Amino acid sequence: MSNLVHRKVGVNEPVEEKSKVSKNPLTDVGSEEEMEPLPSVPSGESIPQDKASVDVLDQVIKDLNPRWRNWVIRGVFSLIMLLSFSSIVYLGPVSITLLILTIQVKCFHEIITIGYVVYKSHHLPWFRTISWLFLITSNYYLYGESLIEKFSILTLKDNFLAPLVTYHRLISFTLYIAGFVAFVLTLKKTYYLKQFTLFGYTHLSLLLIVTQSNLMIQNVFEGLIWFLLPVSLIICNDIMAYMFGFFFGKTRLIKLSPKKTWEGFIGGAFSTIIFGFILSTYLCNFKSMICPTEYDSVTKNLIYDNCEPSSVFKTREYTLPRFIQLIFPNVKIFMQPIQIHALVLAIFASTIGPFGGFFASGFKRAFKIKDFGDTIPGHGGFMDRFDCQVIMATFVNVYIYTFIRSPSPNKLFNQLLSFKHEDQVEFLRLVKNHFGDF
Amino acid sequence: MSNLVHRKVGVNEPVEEKSKVSKNPLTDVGSEEEMEPLPSVPSGESIPQDKASVDVLDQVIKDLNPRWRNWVIRGVFSLIMLLSFSSIVYLGPVSITLLILTIQVKCFHEIITIGYVVYKSHHLPWFRTISWLFLITSNYYLYGESLIEKFSILTLKDNFLAPLVTYHRLISFTLYIAGFVAFVLTLKKTYYLKQFTLFGYTHLSLLLIVTQSNLMIQNVFEGLIWFLLPVSLIICNDIMAYMFGFFFGKTRLIKLSPKKTWEGFIGGAFSTIIFGFILSTYLCNFKSMICPTEYDSVTKNLIYDNCEPSSVFKTREYTLPRFIQLIFPNVKIFMQPIQIHALVLAIFASTIGPFGGFFASGFKRAFKIKDFGDTIPGHGGFMDRFDCQVIMATFVNVYIYTFIRSPSPNKLFNQLLSFKHEDQVEFLRLVKNHFGDF
Repeated sequence: MSNLVHRKVGVNEPVEEKSKVSKNPLTDVGSEEEMEPLPSVPSGESIPQDKASVDVLDQVIKDLNPRWRNWVIRGVFSLIMLLSFSSIVYLGPVSITLLILTIQVKCFHEIITIGYVVYKSHHLPWFRTISWLFLITSNYYLYGESLIEKFSILTLKDNFLAPLVTYHRLISFTLYIAGFVAFVLTLKKTYYLKQFTLFGYTHLSLLLIVTQSNLMIQNVFEGLIWFLLPVSLIICNDIMAYMFGFFFGKTRLIKLSPKKTWEGFIGGAFSTIIFGFILSTYLCNFKSMICPTEYDSVTKNLIYDNCEPSSVFKTREYTLPRFIQLIFPNVKIFMQPIQIHALVLAIFASTIGPFGGFFASGFKRAFKIKDFGDTIPGHGGFMDRFDCQVIMATFVNVYIYTFIRSPSPNKLFNQLLSFKHEDQVEFLRLVKNHFGDF
Repeated sequence: MSNLVHRKVGVNEPVEEKSKVSKNPLTDVGSEEEMEPLPSVPSGESIPQDKASVDVLDQVIKDLNPRWRNWVIRGVFSLIMLLSFSSIVYLGPVSITLLILTIQVKCFHEIITIGYVVYKSHHLPWFRTISWLFLITSNYYLYGESLIEKFSILTLKDNFLAPLVTYHRLISFTLYIAGFVAFVLTLKKTYYLKQFTLFGYTHLSLLLIVTQSNLMIQNVFEGLIWFLLPVSLIICNDIMAYMFGFFFGKTRLIKLSPKKTWEGFIGGAFSTIIFGFILSTYLCNFKSMICPTEYDSVTKNLIYDNCEPSSVFKTREYTLPRFIQLIFPNVKIFMQPIQIHALVLAIFASTIGPFGGFFASGFKRAFKIKDFGDTIPGHGGFMDRFDCQVIMATFVNVYIYTFIRSPSPNKLFNQLLSFKHEDQVEFLRLVKNHFGDF
C-alpha cells in the first residue's frame, strides 16, 4: 500500500509539517548532545546501496527527466525483486524460510538503526549488542517452538542437536535473562529515560517483526499456497491501488497519507479480489503448492509436493441461495473451497492490509524519516516494502488455525512415540477402555 | 526486593538527580503544552487510599516520630496483606486465579496512568479506551490458549461458550485489529510521536504484565506449590535482604538502588535458601499443594487435592559424591527431589530475582516517580510489591516445563477424543501398526 505514497517524486517538495516542527522533539531527550541530521534518502541519482547497477542504469536513462528516471529505476528493481522471489519460491519451503529470515534481520536492522539515530544512543555502546542478543533469543525461542511442534519426531533421534531441543525453553530464558541483566547493569545515570525508551523500542520491534515472520514461516509449512497467495494479494493491491489512484484518484482517503485516494482504494480492492480468485484457482493445481511440508522419516527429507490434497482444494457443489434457485432452477455451482477462502483473504488484503501501510506512514512521520532505509533502489528500505505483509501473515495464520487446519493423526502419534514407556501403556489402556478392541 | 529501598523515609530527602535534570525531558515532546507536575506519593500521613484505616492507625501512633510511624503503618499493612493472601490460597486455584487477575489489572492501571501523565496524553481521549481494549484482548487470547490446552475436554460439550472456544484466535485477532485500526484512525497530526510512543508503552506493559501473570496462573494449575513456594521465596528474600541490610549493611551493591547492600544481598540469599528447603519439605505433605488441577468430567468440578503424587514429591535415596562416601561410608541421604528444586528456585529468587526490582527502580528513576501508585499504605503501588514476582513466575514456568511436567496420557487422550471419526480411525491404525494388539 505504501506504493501509493509517491515518495521519490515528493523529494523536492517540502515535507508537509516541516515548517511547523523544525526540530525532532524526541531528540531533545538528554539534551547534552547536538541534534544530528536524521537519515534521509537522497533523491534518485545518488542512492548509496547497490551503486554499480544504479550507475549503469543512470548512464542509460540520464536524459530522462527525474520523475521518469525514478519510475524506470523503480520498475527495473521491481522486476529484479520479482524474479529473485519467483526463483526462491521455486526452490521450496526451506529457501523461502531463509528468505523470510533474511528479510526479518534486514527489517530489524532498519528499525533499530532508526532508534539508534533518533534517540542518539552513541554513548550506550551495549545497546546494539543487547538488541541483537534479544533478536537471536526470540528467534531461537519462536522457531524452536514451532519446529519442535511440527517435527517433534526429529527430537527422538539422539543427535548433537538434542539438548538444544530438550532444554529449548530454558536456554531461551537464560539468554533473555542474560540480556535483561546486562541491560540493568549498563544503566547509566544520565541516560535512564533514553535507555528505557530504547529497551521498549527494541522489544516492540521484536514483537512486530520476529513474531510475525515466525507466523509467516508457519504458513509456509502449511502449504506454499498459504504463503504465496497472501503475499501476491498484498503486492497486487499495492500496485493496482497505485495505478487506480494515479489515473483516477481525486478523493483523499486518509489524512495520514495524502497521496492515497478512495478511487485507488476501491479499484485496488476490486482488482485484488479478481486476482485472488484467478491465482487461487491456478495455484491449487500444483501439489507443491497445496501440500503441507512433512518430515519423511524413511528418506530423511522434507516432503512438500506429495500428499492427498485436502478437501479445501477439491471441487464440490455449492447450493445457491433459494431466491436464485427460483430464477435459475437448473444452474449448479461447482467451486473449490479455496476460491472462497481466497475471496476472504483478498477482502482482508485490500481493506485491513493497507492499515499496515498507514501505520508505517504514521511511524515515519512521527520519527520524521522519509523511508526506513535505502537498500532497494527506487523503493526505500525493506520495511517500506513489507509493512502490509506483516499484518496479512498474522491474519492468514489465524485463518488457517480456525478454518483450515484439521487435527493431524500423525502429529498425535508422534507425541505418543515421544512418551516414556509407562505413559504409553497408560494411554493405550485409556484407548482400549474407550474404543474396545478396534 | 524493593523493600530494600526505604521509600517513605526518603520522602523528605531530595531525589538524587533532581538538581541535574529539573524538567522531565520526554514531556518536551509536542511542546505546545505546559509541563504538569508528575504524580508523587505524599508522605506517610496523607496517603489518600484506604484513608479511614490509616486515620485510625494515625491516631494511635501519632506520638511516634515519622520514621517509626511509617514502620508501623508498613508493618500493619504487611500483616493485612499476608492474612488476605493466606485465606485466598486456602480457597484454592480459582480464587488464586482471580487474585492474580485483579493484581494484573491494578498493575496495568498503574503503569498506564504513569504513561498517561508523563506523556500528557489528555488530548488523546481514545488512548485509554484503546489501552483497555488491548488489555482485554490479550487476556482473552492468552487465557483462552492455556485454558483450552488444559481443559480441552470441556470444549466438546455443546454449550453457549463453544463459539468463544472454537473461534478463540479469530476473535482475539479481530479485537486486536479493531484496536489497531482505531489507533491508526485516531492519529492526529501534532501528536504522532506521542501517540506512537504511547502505543509502544501500552504494548510493552501488556507484554510485561499480561503474559507473565498468565504464566503464573499456568503454574497454579500445575499444583499450588509451584505458585506458593516461589512467591514465598521472593517475599522471604525481600524481607531478609532488608533486615540484613538494615543491621549489617555497609557495602553498596548497585548504583541504581543506593539503599541495597552486599550484606543484605548475601544474608537474603542464605535465608531464602534455608527457608525454601523448610517450606518445600512442609508443603509437599499436602495433596492440595502438590496435585495439578484437573477437570473431573463425572462430578463436573475442578479437582486439585486428589492425585497420585508425582515422583518429584516422593522420598528417594541420593548417592553421595564419591569422596564423601570414602569418609562416611555408611551415611545414606534420603530426600525428596522437590527439596533440590526448591534450592534452585531459592538461588534464582535471591540472585536474578532482585534484578526485577533493579529494573523497576531504574524505570521509576527514568520517569521521575517515587512509587508506581499509592494503593497499599506504607508500600506504594501494586507494581512496587510485585516487581520481582514477575521474573520469578516466568522462571518457574520454564523450569516446570523443562524438568517437572511429564507428558500426560490424559491430555493426549482428550485430544484424540476431540478428533473427527475418520481421524480417530487413522490414528488407531497407526497405533495398531506400531504397537500390535497390545
